[in-house]
Amino acid sequence: MIRVVLIGSGNLAYHLHRALLQAGGVQLAGLAARREAALDGFDPSVPRLPLGEPPEGADIFLLAVSDQAIARVAAQYARGSALFVHTSGAMGLDVLEPLSRKGVFYPLQTFSKGRELSFDEVPICIEAPVESDMALLSSLARALSTRVVQIGTDKRRELHLAAVYINNFSNHMICLGETLCKKAGLPEGLLHPLLRETCSKVQDLSAYEAQTGPARRNDTATLNAHLDLLKGSPESELYRIVSESIQRTYEQEL
Amino acid sequence: MIRVVLIGSGNLAYHLHRALLQAGGVQLAGLAARREAALDGFDPSVPRLPLGEPPEGADIFLLAVSDQAIARVAAQYARGSALFVHTSGAMGLDVLEPLSRKGVFYPLQTFSKGRELSFDEVPICIEAPVESDMALLSSLARALSTRVVQIGTDKRRELHLAAVYINNFSNHMICLGETLCKKAGLPEGLLHPLLRETCSKVQDLSAYEAQTGPARRNDTATLNAHLDLLKGSPESELYRIVSESIQRTYEQEL
Repeated sequence: MIRVVLIGSGNLAYHLHRALLQAGGVQLAGLAARREAALDGFDPSVPRLPLGEPPEGADIFLLAVSDQAIARVAAQYARGSALFVHTSGAMGLDVLEPLSRKGVFYPLQTFSKGRELSFDEVPICIEAPVESDMALLSSLARALSTRVVQIGTDKRRELHLAAVYINNFSNHMICLGETLCKKAGLPEGLLHPLLRETCSKVQDLSAYEAQTGPARRNDTATLNAHLDLLKGSPESELYRIVSESIQRTYEQEL
Repeated sequence: MIRVVLIGSGNLAYHLHRALLQAGGVQLAGLAARREAALDGFDPSVPRLPLGEPPEGADIFLLAVSDQAIARVAAQYARGSALFVHTSGAMGLDVLEPLSRKGVFYPLQTFSKGRELSFDEVPICIEAPVESDMALLSSLARALSTRVVQIGTDKRRELHLAAVYINNFSNHMICLGETLCKKAGLPEGLLHPLLRETCSKVQDLSAYEAQTGPARRNDTATLNAHLDLLKGSPESELYRIVSESIQRTYEQEL
């Protein structure tokens, strides 16, 4: 039985606590957060621990807080001897410097509180400098997911950057499209079949093959007409930059 | 029975010819293209017509060519009296100037030749200045799709712009993410669960609500670390511009 203490109260902490409660061979021994009230929506049966309490009997401390808070929170646990891991895609091991046993447990997924999500297929990227810690981390990861990979900090950072494009940036483009549609007074539902096909297509083809549209066709008349429509909006620069990036991607073919 | 001649040989023309062959009350009377060889993958039973042949017996000429080619091709049909419609999201009616009866038939979707697509749910945006032409156009559109809307040129242009964000731009972000992953030598499959959840989420929530990540959290340390990773790449400006746009979108909340 791996005893885990989870620190944090955000989207990732929420989904981790649900997954840990369901996992076999794992006991969620406690929850801690900077503001305990932020844990209100979490399972009430799990003990709330004061932040910085020495990790009596816990095997792993899972730190699911914002990147900026990791070092500060880690410092509060410097006396302990449990394995202490953060869940960030972007941070190295050095941010856990004062701790004797450290590692990384990075689930590569987008988490929102109001949304059910199965951890089974979430790739979990693990890293630990000591072999026995890596084995423990691997056992915990395998209890949550079928996809566990050992990845060092440099590669994890590149993966995290790629994930920002795949999720955050693509989502934002859809957000801008929905906003334009709303501003024009057009029914939003009009765009739903296109959104569905966009999503379906990019899972069957590579995004490179799936591309269509004026930038892909190098249709400068339409590109200029769109820039005219956006004139005066802070988004016109984004339109230009993204179109140029698409044109650059297919330059050889035109 | 509506007799249709289809002009063009690209992705849209291909999918239109398939849909027209299956539609009830519609006869695909002929195909024309600038280069007839480009029609090789099209149904061999449909007569090939020389470009510019007078529209004997045809009710509607459907022009599915690139925006830049519309005026040039339309001019070749100036003697005819059939209804002549283009399929562009970006062009007005004026581009069909020499023709006596004109209109627009814009299917709001992304089309790729190698991919099956059902027209049933594709919104078709129609426009025609003469009421009887609009009625004919509406009949044709309804034979192909359950979602037919009358939209004037200005609104159609705004819709087309929104569609570029929803499809082309979001797809390109995914393309950049896949490229980064490949360049880093990481297995591409690692990103698939994230891509699946990105797509699933944005169809359940609005993209506005679905957003997560460093720009959404205003996590400047990670944003700067990512810009460092991208240093020297032409994509670093895109990263900055898109992140700033996300930050602007959620400014009020931070």
